[in-house]
Amino acid sequence: MRIARFSIDGNVAFGAVEEGPEGPVLDIIKGIPYADFELSGVKVPLGKVRLLPPVIGNKIVAFGRNYADHAKELGNEPADVPWAFFKPTTSMVGDGDPIEYPSFSNELHHEAELAVVIGRMCREVPRERVKDVIFGYTCANDVTARDVQKREKQWARAKGFDSSCPIGPWVETELDPSDLAIQCTVNGEQRQLGSTSQMIHSIEDLIVNITEAMTLLPGDVILTGTPAGVGPLNVGDEVAVTIQGIGTLTNKVIKRG
Amino acid sequence: MRIARFSIDGNVAFGAVEEGPEGPVLDIIKGIPYADFELSGVKVPLGKVRLLPPVIGNKIVAFGRNYADHAKELGNEPADVPWAFFKPTTSMVGDGDPIEYPSFSNELHHEAELAVVIGRMCREVPRERVKDVIFGYTCANDVTARDVQKREKQWARAKGFDSSCPIGPWVETELDPSDLAIQCTVNGEQRQLGSTSQMIHSIEDLIVNITEAMTLLPGDVILTGTPAGVGPLNVGDEVAVTIQGIGTLTNKVIKRG
Repeated sequence: MRIARFSIDGNVAFGAVEEGPEGPVLDIIKGIPYADFELSGVKVPLGKVRLLPPVIGNKIVAFGRNYADHAKELGNEPADVPWAFFKPTTSMVGDGDPIEYPSFSNELHHEAELAVVIGRMCREVPRERVKDVIFGYTCANDVTARDVQKREKQWARAKGFDSSCPIGPWVETELDPSDLAIQCTVNGEQRQLGSTSQMIHSIEDLIVNITEAMTLLPGDVILTGTPAGVGPLNVGDEVAVTIQGIGTLTNKVIKRG
Repeated sequence: MRIARFSIDGNVAFGAVEEGPEGPVLDIIKGIPYADFELSGVKVPLGKVRLLPPVIGNKIVAFGRNYADHAKELGNEPADVPWAFFKPTTSMVGDGDPIEYPSFSNELHHEAELAVVIGRMCREVPRERVKDVIFGYTCANDVTARDVQKREKQWARAKGFDSSCPIGPWVETELDPSDLAIQCTVNGEQRQLGSTSQMIHSIEDLIVNITEAMTLLPGDVILTGTPAGVGPLNVGDEVAVTIQGIGTLTNKVIKRG
C-alpha cells in the first residue's frame, strides 16, 4: 500500500493511493497509519491535493558514507562502522515543495537516499526483529550545504536548514528494499545512479546500531546514505529522486525569499 | 517566574514554583506557558510531584567548544565559528530521573551547560530581537559517551542516547544570563566551575547563527557549551549541575536495565 499525507482545501489527512477510473485517487485514512487504521472510502483525486511529507515523526537519523563510491568521490573513507547524524523535522518538505537556497551557502548538493519509516516505538531491536519495526519506504533528498559542511565540524546547519529534507511522494509499505535502483536527475539529466544493494551497512545493521542507543518513535525516518554522483544544485533547477518500486520525489530550487 | 513540568497521580501539567506557608508549591498553569497562560490557583506541594523535563519541544540544538578552557582540555581548538549538533528530544530526562549508562560505551562524561528555552516560532532572528524569542533558562547536562564520540565522526549516538540530556529542574523566565556561575559536582565533589561570561560565542551569536539556517519552535532548547572540568561518570554516581539564579539539576547514574 502507498500512504501519502496531503492537504486539500485547508484540511490535512493521510490517504492510500489507489487507481480510480479517472486516474489516481487518495482514499482518506481514518486514524493514524502507524497504528490501526481503516480506509474511509472517501476519495479525492491525487492531482487536486498538495502532497506533504508522508510522515509525522520525532526525528530523522541519517547515516553517512554508506556507499563506498560516494565516500571516495568526496575524498573520504567509507564508514567502517555506521555513524549517524540528525536532521530536524523542521527540515522536511513534501513532493513538489520548493527547496529554498539558504543565504549562508554557495554550494548546495543533492543526495538521493532511500528513507526507512519506523512504525513502532522501539529500542534495542534485535536483528531478526528489524522488519517488525519498519512501516515502509520512501524517497528522500539529503540536501547538503557542502561548503558549510566543510567549515563546521558538526552538520546541524549544513544538513539541517529548512527544506533540506525533501521526502515523499508517499510511503510504500510492501517492498523488498535489498536491491532497488536509486536515481537522481537534475533538469532531467542523470546525476546519481546506484542500487540499495551497494550499501556498506544494511538497513538491519543501521537500525540495530541506532536503537542500541536510542528509542525510535512511529514516524521517525532513517536515511540510509547516498550513492556516487552528488553535485551542485542551483536556483531554478528541478531535482528528482526516483527509487524503483516507490516513485519519484521532485523539487525545484528557489531563492529563499 | 520559575516554570516546571511535572506529573502527579498520573496527570501531567506545567506549574509555577511558588513559596507556600509549608514549603514550595506548584501553582498549576492553565494553557501552554510559551503562549498566553494563567495560573489556576490550584497548588500542589513541590515535594509530592515527579519533575519532568520542563519543556516540550521539537529539537535540541547544542553548540560545541564554546568555552576555550574546555576545548583545550580535550586537545581541541576552540570554535572559531559557532557550530552545532542536535540531540533528539527522546534524550531528555528530568531532575531526579536516572541517567542510564548505555551498553555501547565505557566512558561516560558529564558536561554542565546553560540551556536556553525558545518561546516563539522564529527564523532569521536579528541580533537585537534575540531577547524576544527567549522564553527562559534552565540547567542541562550534555552527557557524552566520550569513547563513542572519538570513534564516530558525527555524534548522534555519542550524545543522543536515551537519558543523555537531563534538563531542569525548571525554566527561570527572569534572568540576566551574561555572567552566571555554572558548576558541576559528582557525589558532592566539584568537577566543573565556570561562568557563562566565558562563552566564546554569546547567546545572541548562537541564536542568530542557528536561525539563519532553520526555524526554531516554542520549547526548542539551545545548549550553549560546557566549561572546563568534564570527566567520567560511573554507575552509582550522583551528578549535579547548578547554575546561579536557576537551581540544581541532580541525576543518578544507573546501569541500563
